[in-house]
Amino acid sequence: MPRNAFYAQSGGVTAVINASAAGVIETARKHRKQIGKLYAGRNGILGALTEDLIDTSKESPAAIRALKNTPGGAFGSARYKLKGVEKGGHEYERLIEVFKAHDIGYFFYNGGNDSADTCLKVSQISATMGYPIVAVHVPKTVDNDLPITDTCPGFGSVAKYVSTSMMEAVLDVESMARTSTKVFILEVMGRHAGWITAATGLAQQKAGQGPHILLFPEVPWNEEAFLARVEESVKQHGYCAVGASEGIQDAEGRFLSESGLKDAFGHSQLGGVAPMLANLVQSKLKLKQHWAVADYLQRAARHIASKTDLEQSYAVGKAAVEYAVKGMNSVMPTIVRSSSRPYRWKIGVAKLSDVANVEKKMPRDFITPDGFHITAKCRNYLQPLISGEAFPPFENGLPKYVRLKNAAVRKKTQGVWNP
Amino acid sequence: MPRNAFYAQSGGVTAVINASAAGVIETARKHRKQIGKLYAGRNGILGALTEDLIDTSKESPAAIRALKNTPGGAFGSARYKLKGVEKGGHEYERLIEVFKAHDIGYFFYNGGNDSADTCLKVSQISATMGYPIVAVHVPKTVDNDLPITDTCPGFGSVAKYVSTSMMEAVLDVESMARTSTKVFILEVMGRHAGWITAATGLAQQKAGQGPHILLFPEVPWNEEAFLARVEESVKQHGYCAVGASEGIQDAEGRFLSESGLKDAFGHSQLGGVAPMLANLVQSKLKLKQHWAVADYLQRAARHIASKTDLEQSYAVGKAAVEYAVKGMNSVMPTIVRSSSRPYRWKIGVAKLSDVANVEKKMPRDFITPDGFHITAKCRNYLQPLISGEAFPPFENGLPKYVRLKNAAVRKKTQGVWNP
Repeated sequence: MPRNAFYAQSGGVTAVINASAAGVIETARKHRKQIGKLYAGRNGILGALTEDLIDTSKESPAAIRALKNTPGGAFGSARYKLKGVEKGGHEYERLIEVFKAHDIGYFFYNGGNDSADTCLKVSQISATMGYPIVAVHVPKTVDNDLPITDTCPGFGSVAKYVSTSMMEAVLDVESMARTSTKVFILEVMGRHAGWITAATGLAQQKAGQGPHILLFPEVPWNEEAFLARVEESVKQHGYCAVGASEGIQDAEGRFLSESGLKDAFGHSQLGGVAPMLANLVQSKLKLKQHWAVADYLQRAARHIASKTDLEQSYAVGKAAVEYAVKGMNSVMPTIVRSSSRPYRWKIGVAKLSDVANVEKKMPRDFITPDGFHITAKCRNYLQPLISGEAFPPFENGLPKYVRLKNAAVRKKTQGVWNP
Repeated sequence: MPRNAFYAQSGGVTAVINASAAGVIETARKHRKQIGKLYAGRNGILGALTEDLIDTSKESPAAIRALKNTPGGAFGSARYKLKGVEKGGHEYERLIEVFKAHDIGYFFYNGGNDSADTCLKVSQISATMGYPIVAVHVPKTVDNDLPITDTCPGFGSVAKYVSTSMMEAVLDVESMARTSTKVFILEVMGRHAGWITAATGLAQQKAGQGPHILLFPEVPWNEEAFLARVEESVKQHGYCAVGASEGIQDAEGRFLSESGLKDAFGHSQLGGVAPMLANLVQSKLKLKQHWAVADYLQRAARHIASKTDLEQSYAVGKAAVEYAVKGMNSVMPTIVRSSSRPYRWKIGVAKLSDVANVEKKMPRDFITPDGFHITAKCRNYLQPLISGEAFPPFENGLPKYVRLKNAAVRKKTQGVWNP
């Protein structure tokens, strides 16, 4: 007898997380003998806790196909970490209650480190509760910080966006520097790992071209060294372009962005490493500067997604279902690189116990000895990940993105979620 | 006997100003009887003042063709306004001296309001100096604020970038709002005119979808009305997306961005309307917010340029040369809209005396009565301008942009530029 399945999106969404959803849904539809209905959680795991399930069978094949072209989280995602067994485990119990009520035997959780841990626990706790659930994690994070997998679905597209944007901004600044902006700073995501910052470095294709400086969270912030390098770059090349991580921190681990900007009313200024750096450049070096903060634009930019990333995102969704119907439990499909030139990859598998709560930072030999740029080894790693274009369809000048019907499933439990 | 020509880029560069350069160069190459060499100014008009001319005949047809795909200013642009006759007119005299030395009889100046004025003066002053030059202005400005022409080359591509980016960010925020960011603010360019801000509004395709609020420089800033609207939007739709002009100002014309952020050292905080608004939302409404500042990314984003804009940018460059060889002087090619649905346009002509120093703001009936969004009339105007895609070629995952040889022409004058 087939059992139903539950899919949820977790944490920050990406340009291609819906491609993973499409991989899960389309593959589940091909395994009718094992998988009955595929339900999605409205707003991620909250959909399970509140028993707000979406019936994906109401969506047409065309709508599911269109998910491959649509950024954001089609069913809603959530930043929510289930309260663990040390707090009574009531949330896990509630989850199992809902799964039981809807005959859900498969759990697909699409997220990063936290959700890998949750996924593992669902598998373990459901077994101890006598209602064993096959739990498979579908990797997703723009931060590229999951272990074992060569890369994380979602990262390649951000990398393509930031490297393209940096390359374009550099051409702009370079052509105006004689009479206008001398220093340009682009702030990108990646609070703990410098992968996205590293990707901005791909825009530099010849020595002397921008970006000239990358600021990684892995390299302790040093104001003097930074300013000296900016000055040198402006002297040598006429301008200086900087790719800066939002997570720059000093040797004591204090975030630069928390070092105390105040507004006119004395309120703390929120975020914004780029404006801080720009201020520093202006006040200490008296150089005209401009800055950009890409924020959500970078992780939502489906219009410039990496084809490689898109294919991998779909492939991990597909593999997750294939593993699950084979009875593989507490696992995560991984991307395995077999060659960089030419780039070859395949899908592998990792045990969730090896994945959960492990953070992969930039290796030191991916960063130049002076700490300000990426090495050739890093370029070899990054370059294939941004390869290939996968433009969405356009209509009236704008990308044609799908919004699903997201029809609710009738509730069956009497229980409620007590957060 | 053919005479030489001079082309210069002026002011802020765009994703498609080089397409205008390609139009000028390719068309000049077709008029060998009238136009000899086409020189470009290195760093815009400074190239003429310093006699630093670039010989465009050294560039291959393929390189010139590739300009259509390349953002920034291929010869360098400048923010430099020639000192007028009231200051002695020495700079104009120096310009004519250089033009005379290189037998330059045609002047093509590619820019916005300021450069239209300069272009007109070059024509007038050269005539009074007995060395008449045919001066044609090639319109370019992302601000879309030149009069007479239906739109300004460069604007359509920024409009496409900001509307696409807003649409993508809205999908992101919408899917996370339940547990994460409730208010998202995207700051865009346009210090005096709200055209770019208006374009972010195109991302809203159905009532209720973001962006819910647009903040125009044309509408006096009202903190209470803004906060009330944000709160209402979050209540009704679960989130609020805002497109904000960098030039928001109060009824007295004071820019919001100059209202006094200080950093930890007491230095004035530079720019950044978005972080100010975000701070306000956080402190007054206690709503989680995120913000992005696109800055140069928006005007350099050739990867998402509007095909319409690209074609028009090329067409005005082409027309400029055609007008010049016909002896039309002190004019500017314009875009004339003959129909919106279906969109039809052709090239027209305007007298520079009607263009110089006139700024076209958003008509009041393009903005909704409450001041917070665009009207159907505005959508009808904007929509055709972002139509069509014109992706650049890609190589190894990144756009393939050209850098020209930019070979210098041997100097002939003894004079120097005394700014």
